[in-house]
Amino acid sequence: MPSEFDLIRRHFTRPAHHTTLSVGDDAALLAPRAGMQLAVSTDMLVAGTHFFADADPEALGWKTLAVNVSDLAAMGAEPRWAVLALSLPAADEAWIAAFARGFFACADAFGVDLAGGDTTRGPLNLCVTIFGEVPAGAAVTRGGARTGDDLWITGTPGHAALGLAHLRGEVALGADAARTCLAALHRPQPRVAFGQALRGIASAMLDVSDGLLGDLGHILECSGCGALIDVAALPLAALHACGADDALARRCLLSGGDDYELLFAAPPAQRERLAALAHGHGLPLSRIGTITASAGELVLRETDGREHPTAHAGYDHFA
Amino acid sequence: MPSEFDLIRRHFTRPAHHTTLSVGDDAALLAPRAGMQLAVSTDMLVAGTHFFADADPEALGWKTLAVNVSDLAAMGAEPRWAVLALSLPAADEAWIAAFARGFFACADAFGVDLAGGDTTRGPLNLCVTIFGEVPAGAAVTRGGARTGDDLWITGTPGHAALGLAHLRGEVALGADAARTCLAALHRPQPRVAFGQALRGIASAMLDVSDGLLGDLGHILECSGCGALIDVAALPLAALHACGADDALARRCLLSGGDDYELLFAAPPAQRERLAALAHGHGLPLSRIGTITASAGELVLRETDGREHPTAHAGYDHFA
Repeated sequence: MPSEFDLIRRHFTRPAHHTTLSVGDDAALLAPRAGMQLAVSTDMLVAGTHFFADADPEALGWKTLAVNVSDLAAMGAEPRWAVLALSLPAADEAWIAAFARGFFACADAFGVDLAGGDTTRGPLNLCVTIFGEVPAGAAVTRGGARTGDDLWITGTPGHAALGLAHLRGEVALGADAARTCLAALHRPQPRVAFGQALRGIASAMLDVSDGLLGDLGHILECSGCGALIDVAALPLAALHACGADDALARRCLLSGGDDYELLFAAPPAQRERLAALAHGHGLPLSRIGTITASAGELVLRETDGREHPTAHAGYDHFA
Repeated sequence: MPSEFDLIRRHFTRPAHHTTLSVGDDAALLAPRAGMQLAVSTDMLVAGTHFFADADPEALGWKTLAVNVSDLAAMGAEPRWAVLALSLPAADEAWIAAFARGFFACADAFGVDLAGGDTTRGPLNLCVTIFGEVPAGAAVTRGGARTGDDLWITGTPGHAALGLAHLRGEVALGADAARTCLAALHRPQPRVAFGQALRGIASAMLDVSDGLLGDLGHILECSGCGALIDVAALPLAALHACGADDALARRCLLSGGDDYELLFAAPPAQRERLAALAHGHGLPLSRIGTITASAGELVLRETDGREHPTAHAGYDHFA
């Protein structure tokens, strides 16, 4: 049986494009470009919590890196390097090879060098730390939203949650819809180019991983503001088209995570520029509400005009 | 019960000293200093593989960061930032508080800002990624050893393995010896200052985590050379003083890991400078052998002068 070192070397050694010293020493060496800040994020994915233990390893490889790439997109940063630590229950070469294929497909798609890693035996656990570059001072944080800003969401969020509901047997989707929703769940497409384009436009931004309302709560908290969501403006049509009824579509869009779309605030003066950007990127973009002055208060305006406050607690892994 | 977010905020929010944007956004923002390369390393520690599930959480917090700090020491880099991802079986606040105390004690000791992290539910798993700075071109890698170089080891390695043997009941140490050895096992002291002092002196270096012979194998492989170890020069006395017989002392020193001492090669012309450095740092330093031209060949010279080849396979988590 090949050793741990052999397996890792065989499947995780790729030519690095912009890394001074890559996998194989005590530490990797990177040289950030002049004038750049480094944006750093880490995410740990655990079997049974974030994915099924028998999940397709190639899709899992993609998603493990993609969720980290998305964190950088949400800062307006350019992904550059990642390190991967993984704990595996066995040295299953077929699994490792498929996982590596998916991981590197995502790395190649977004220009990420795998700069280092660690492999050990234990319950299946995947931890990526990713590094991107952003011009000093240009990063878009969660804390800059101002009263009167518009609230925007990219894409058609809710597909991933609908795919998960399908896998759980809570809904039976048609073949085409299932394919669309499972692709959103298993191979999310982080909005990297669009995130960078939002530098200087968005006042606050994050990527939706735990549900739109929950994640919006982080913007409200960091920015010290409230928000009004206009239900009529939510991009529910794509979920209806997949066969979700109104209640399910709404739940998937507002509370489902895992689509990794960008939720951001921007001054109304940016509307035309944003429309042009969205057109240029071929990306649906919905103006779903407004930032308000009522700190921490999240209000939904129903299609009949009725307004009511709603909760915005994020997903709590220990609740 | 406090939520995940509350627990993390309460115990892992500390003022950052040199981080532009710290815990709480999609990504942290760091600004490496001009002329510096970034050295990056990641290590995953798993309950049952790297430590006992009931290990003291404060000591575990120290060690989780210390083993990463040591990777930077082994490059001659200065530790600056770390991110911590952890998977916990339950939101046990006492455990988290103690772990955080140990983690930050180590962070404070070595000037590390905790810049970000991730917490999730799952089998106990601790993953740190650490970033240090090293002047461009000055990092000491594993690949620079040359025939004729001396081989050096810092400190008195083997104490950690002897402590582990004591915990496992394979040896019964006296109270003082047990204290010494368990301190080495639970609160390793990475050789950060000495590692930086070795820039421009050491030709190749690493920290011993999986056993001296096993890790030496990595230097031989990366440098394309061999080594002769002089058993008479090994710092076995400190282990004898703890009550280990000769066979156990030798096994702990040559095959035990977890002391995180620095193993390095340096040209003989550096002997005087190294003696002065070791004196200045109050650190034992032993010249234990020589780099040879026989690629991959590791030879032990016994105290009677007899020489024989030995294996240098590193620890394989899947063997």
